[in-house]
Amino acid sequence: MAPQLKDELDIVIPTIRNLDFLEMWRPFFLPYHLIIVQDGDPSKTIKVPEGFDYELYNRNDINRILGPRASCISFKDSACRCFGYMISKKKYIYTIDDDCFVAKDPSGKDIDALAQHIKNLLCPSTPLFFNTLYDPFADGADFVRGYPFSLREGVPTAVSHGLWLNIPDYDAPTQLVKPRERNSRYVDAVMTIPKGTLFPMCGMNLAFDRDLIGPAMYFGLMGDGQPIGRYDDMWAGWCIKVICDHLGLGVKTGLPYIWHSKASNPFVNLKKEYKGIFWQEDIIPFFQAITLPKDCDTVQKCYVALSQQVKDKLGKVDPYFTKLADAMVTWIDAWDTLNPGKATANGTAKGK
Amino acid sequence: MAPQLKDELDIVIPTIRNLDFLEMWRPFFLPYHLIIVQDGDPSKTIKVPEGFDYELYNRNDINRILGPRASCISFKDSACRCFGYMISKKKYIYTIDDDCFVAKDPSGKDIDALAQHIKNLLCPSTPLFFNTLYDPFADGADFVRGYPFSLREGVPTAVSHGLWLNIPDYDAPTQLVKPRERNSRYVDAVMTIPKGTLFPMCGMNLAFDRDLIGPAMYFGLMGDGQPIGRYDDMWAGWCIKVICDHLGLGVKTGLPYIWHSKASNPFVNLKKEYKGIFWQEDIIPFFQAITLPKDCDTVQKCYVALSQQVKDKLGKVDPYFTKLADAMVTWIDAWDTLNPGKATANGTAKGK
Repeated sequence: MAPQLKDELDIVIPTIRNLDFLEMWRPFFLPYHLIIVQDGDPSKTIKVPEGFDYELYNRNDINRILGPRASCISFKDSACRCFGYMISKKKYIYTIDDDCFVAKDPSGKDIDALAQHIKNLLCPSTPLFFNTLYDPFADGADFVRGYPFSLREGVPTAVSHGLWLNIPDYDAPTQLVKPRERNSRYVDAVMTIPKGTLFPMCGMNLAFDRDLIGPAMYFGLMGDGQPIGRYDDMWAGWCIKVICDHLGLGVKTGLPYIWHSKASNPFVNLKKEYKGIFWQEDIIPFFQAITLPKDCDTVQKCYVALSQQVKDKLGKVDPYFTKLADAMVTWIDAWDTLNPGKATANGTAKGK
Repeated sequence: MAPQLKDELDIVIPTIRNLDFLEMWRPFFLPYHLIIVQDGDPSKTIKVPEGFDYELYNRNDINRILGPRASCISFKDSACRCFGYMISKKKYIYTIDDDCFVAKDPSGKDIDALAQHIKNLLCPSTPLFFNTLYDPFADGADFVRGYPFSLREGVPTAVSHGLWLNIPDYDAPTQLVKPRERNSRYVDAVMTIPKGTLFPMCGMNLAFDRDLIGPAMYFGLMGDGQPIGRYDDMWAGWCIKVICDHLGLGVKTGLPYIWHSKASNPFVNLKKEYKGIFWQEDIIPFFQAITLPKDCDTVQKCYVALSQQVKDKLGKVDPYFTKLADAMVTWIDAWDTLNPGKATANGTAKGK
């Protein structure tokens, strides 16, 4: 049983509707504080089931708190959730979508997703060499023959990326081609994404250490007034991965699973995604080739350096990236204003 | 059900004893040709259960066939198995230890390890980007949202590394510390080891495409007269991985599982391994930093270039590596002699 981190973890939920889904999570989430980021019409009232400890921010709150810097927080897109990361004062964040329910493990037991994420975050990662039996810190597992002993200490874990049973996280073209595909494969593994390897980070079921990587967990400019949607978590994933690699931090993926209840509309998704589908063919090589300056020894410095490279190199792909690069800097300004004195919080990590 | 490759695959088994273990594999191995590499005393007779189609080579045969080049084939060590890779005329090799039995999947069904390996080898690999739902070519799976479309074609798969239930493949120190640890975790996944990432390749349950990577599957100088043992498969794993990365080929790990019946003696193992435990602290950074010249467009050219770097850089660690580098060249000579006209067999792969 992983330790609870009642006083050190906030759960961030972006939503436009009443949070009935929390009923199913009650046994697991009740001890924790919730940060609800209300998207869309701020005059609408969001009902939260009784007993939960929460604060709720709507668009008016975000505008009031951030002033002109509120421009970096997306509207009418679940990317708005990153405001919750910024306003939190806790060390850890867990974020979950409101169409995600408690999954069952193969024995039929309810999965305490949060407990597994906490376990993942509190154990080291091993990004420098692959362990064929997966997480060497799992019960009954270890490093296999041939794993260098000097690398077994691992590095601090910054991010824990959880998966989804039932509706898989597919792009619109795959949704259209395979409308009936469901994920029923329970893969009993947690693994570190190796250094130098990018992955598609999904925001549906995601935990991270705010002190280690928080300022890089920006979900970009999506939705209202933007040419793109559904790439908020992908953008954050590429950014956090190159920064974790630079700072010597780990990113894990695998367990825990949640039950993803409902596929979003593939036609709507295609409209949101189609520019991203083109652009990522340039974005991925950009991120694969990035090197950050050696003197970037905090997440903030890394992120600002990254924004400059986004402007210089991706700005040529589309003017959107120039705007996004500016928003990345605004985000860091806003983060540092709300979190004064936290600029060197990642001092435990070693630069490469 | 994966297709059988009856006429295209040989099973290579190194052994010093009667092959009673084949009885359990009968339903799966009977259609295939076996190459048995008898280690140790050549005057001893190895009994093979009735009905199997096999050829058997002992040390006298190896010496006769290879002449002076037989020096590159280890003696009194399961590294001798690589002679079987060389003498085969088939496209695919599956190699298995004689203490490995048929494992059961979580539903209690016998696992046809060979069928899964064939499936792995016939499907592309995806080393350039991580897919969070693991093998995108598995039933009910696909590439997730955010996976670049241009990378979905993948690359040809050269190696399929299978795992072990029951006795895990631990080094001597871990065996000594955890004598009772057993692997009971069935992880239902196959994944590509990302480009640029090294892994500890175990020779217990391993399949590969001889045409694509065969000449790099050399298990080194181990056992009799050598200062090291139990690093034969590790050595091959580091070599094949950097060459696959260079040539644009894929390496998979995960399913299938076999049942590993018996832990080898940890005290004996420690004696064999202890130099390797030191040396690998230099070997791993060496392999992590390697770049092969662009004009190395065949496995043979890559391997000879690699041997030169081993001599130049690891020769300083211990004179053993100078000897090993020479043996690597001898191995390629012997390979090309037994397999004339195969030097450009990997022409389907794109250089990086």
